[in-house]
Amino acid sequence: MTELNRRTLLAGTAALGAASVTGVIESVTPAKAAAPLAGKQNNGWYRYKVGDVEVTVVTDGVNRVAKLPDGFVLNAKPQDVDAALVADFREAGKVEIPYNPVVLNTGSKLIMIDTGTGEAGFNSSKGVAGQFTNNLIASGYKPEQIDTVVISHYHGDHVNGLLKADNTLAYPNAEILVPAAEHKYWMDDGEMSRAPAGRMEGLFKNNRRVFNAEVLKRVKTYDPGKEIAPGLTAMATYGHSAGHNSHMLSSGGKTVFISADVTNVPFLFLRNPGWHLSFDQDPKLAEESRRKVYDMVATDKIMVQGFHFPFPAMVYVEKTANGYREIAVPWQSTI
Amino acid sequence: MTELNRRTLLAGTAALGAASVTGVIESVTPAKAAAPLAGKQNNGWYRYKVGDVEVTVVTDGVNRVAKLPDGFVLNAKPQDVDAALVADFREAGKVEIPYNPVVLNTGSKLIMIDTGTGEAGFNSSKGVAGQFTNNLIASGYKPEQIDTVVISHYHGDHVNGLLKADNTLAYPNAEILVPAAEHKYWMDDGEMSRAPAGRMEGLFKNNRRVFNAEVLKRVKTYDPGKEIAPGLTAMATYGHSAGHNSHMLSSGGKTVFISADVTNVPFLFLRNPGWHLSFDQDPKLAEESRRKVYDMVATDKIMVQGFHFPFPAMVYVEKTANGYREIAVPWQSTI
Repeated sequence: MTELNRRTLLAGTAALGAASVTGVIESVTPAKAAAPLAGKQNNGWYRYKVGDVEVTVVTDGVNRVAKLPDGFVLNAKPQDVDAALVADFREAGKVEIPYNPVVLNTGSKLIMIDTGTGEAGFNSSKGVAGQFTNNLIASGYKPEQIDTVVISHYHGDHVNGLLKADNTLAYPNAEILVPAAEHKYWMDDGEMSRAPAGRMEGLFKNNRRVFNAEVLKRVKTYDPGKEIAPGLTAMATYGHSAGHNSHMLSSGGKTVFISADVTNVPFLFLRNPGWHLSFDQDPKLAEESRRKVYDMVATDKIMVQGFHFPFPAMVYVEKTANGYREIAVPWQSTI
Repeated sequence: MTELNRRTLLAGTAALGAASVTGVIESVTPAKAAAPLAGKQNNGWYRYKVGDVEVTVVTDGVNRVAKLPDGFVLNAKPQDVDAALVADFREAGKVEIPYNPVVLNTGSKLIMIDTGTGEAGFNSSKGVAGQFTNNLIASGYKPEQIDTVVISHYHGDHVNGLLKADNTLAYPNAEILVPAAEHKYWMDDGEMSRAPAGRMEGLFKNNRRVFNAEVLKRVKTYDPGKEIAPGLTAMATYGHSAGHNSHMLSSGGKTVFISADVTNVPFLFLRNPGWHLSFDQDPKLAEESRRKVYDMVATDKIMVQGFHFPFPAMVYVEKTANGYREIAVPWQSTI
């Protein structure tokens, strides 16, 4: 137990050899009050620039599905789904579905795309989801500053955050841009009357709740192929829902494809684009949209921002023998 | 330009059809003061549990190498290195090397493994590196609370943070655990006198600066194969430097391999384990250590925490035809 110090070091190799290896220096390491366990995760937001636009990925958290329901993937054997999960070093029979809305600051407008599950989602998930507002605030913005909410489609994890738990407006100063075809479908009483009981009926009821009078006052519809905000162009990616839209952001020669639900979790449906998600309203059309989008971004090397991808949910895509593979974009400590 | 509201909606499809598609509702979207660009990235820390131990990955930032020096990879053609960079959707001829120390809270001790480049690194890099202390504080800890600094090896990005810019102790209450073989080598005057001019000579000089009298008072040496803190076992992974050590953390049946510089950036050297990094002191031995480690973690499916991996630097590893591939561990919004 010999102390190492400059004197022994300067004495050279032999002295050092004698001094090293097993020293324990109790005198300079008094017992200290232990730092308590921190118990707290970092806030879930991440920022990058696309030309002049600042993009902030603001996670809403995840949906932890403890037991994968039968038919989650309509046209794959459960053992093949399990194999894909295990290949991604996940547990068989379970899935974790992240929710990642984004917020664009164009310099003149603060625009969010999709909302996450909202305050009610936070309460029902015990904070595993519904984290969007907390993370938005942590990222430096207030809900009152949001000028525009762009909606990709009318599923709960994308629209429920329009409302607080008491059904008042979560973004009181925002206009709400919605896909025309999507809005028409869900607000159509005939479609609602024909909806099968269960999930589809529930979605209609939820959309009639969310799109209340105050929300509807702020709704503007948009069509695919149109620039709906500076540099932000809507693209029809139908199938997952009747009027599902994705969004291409372009500024200063840079482009990001904000894909919404063109695919659900990439470790299943991007790697196996022929697999059909039970939540896809028209699975064949959804597959067609998926292949069209991923062929495009793979060929043109366009970065994808994926709503259901693990935070911060930014990937490039390349083709494989059977589908696609995502290459994560590395975290940058500066913007 | 017709406003969508509950009345038109409740009127059903036909009325809705007339109301939808192109509305712009100026009245409810008055011009607002734009939210200013935030200009700020999230703090770079991430926390997870390994049994009873809380691990906090605290990034020090990155080293942006704007022009890859000739011979960065000793035994690969520049065009093959460029191809590997491009395959990872990076720019040819450039590399970005992240620095990711970790902090372990065992409940009774707060232990950091490696230091990053320190305050001087922050100043010289203009904040691109040297972010460890800021991120440590953001994660909920103060430098004074660190009980133990474990050093893997004596390269600047691992030891320079032991000192503040004025060469006083950055962690005034910490003992400093160093690999015995590494310490012996760098403190050996004979080895120093034989060091080739340039990088190796510079490393010796830097280590004599860093391991000043105050630091040496706190130094204890450790040997591989020994548990150097509760659940933390040192492992000899020689080659990158004379006495380079990695660390296996085990608690509650969970295990993480904290790999230090068994490999530099994974997108080059994990995918091509036969490639030799110019910074490897004994490249052949480094390759041997690398293959041994990655064979082990691939076979046993042990998570790797990689110092030079993109933040948060947690991956699983699988074998490929020519080497290995990393599978990123997804971000969790809760711990």
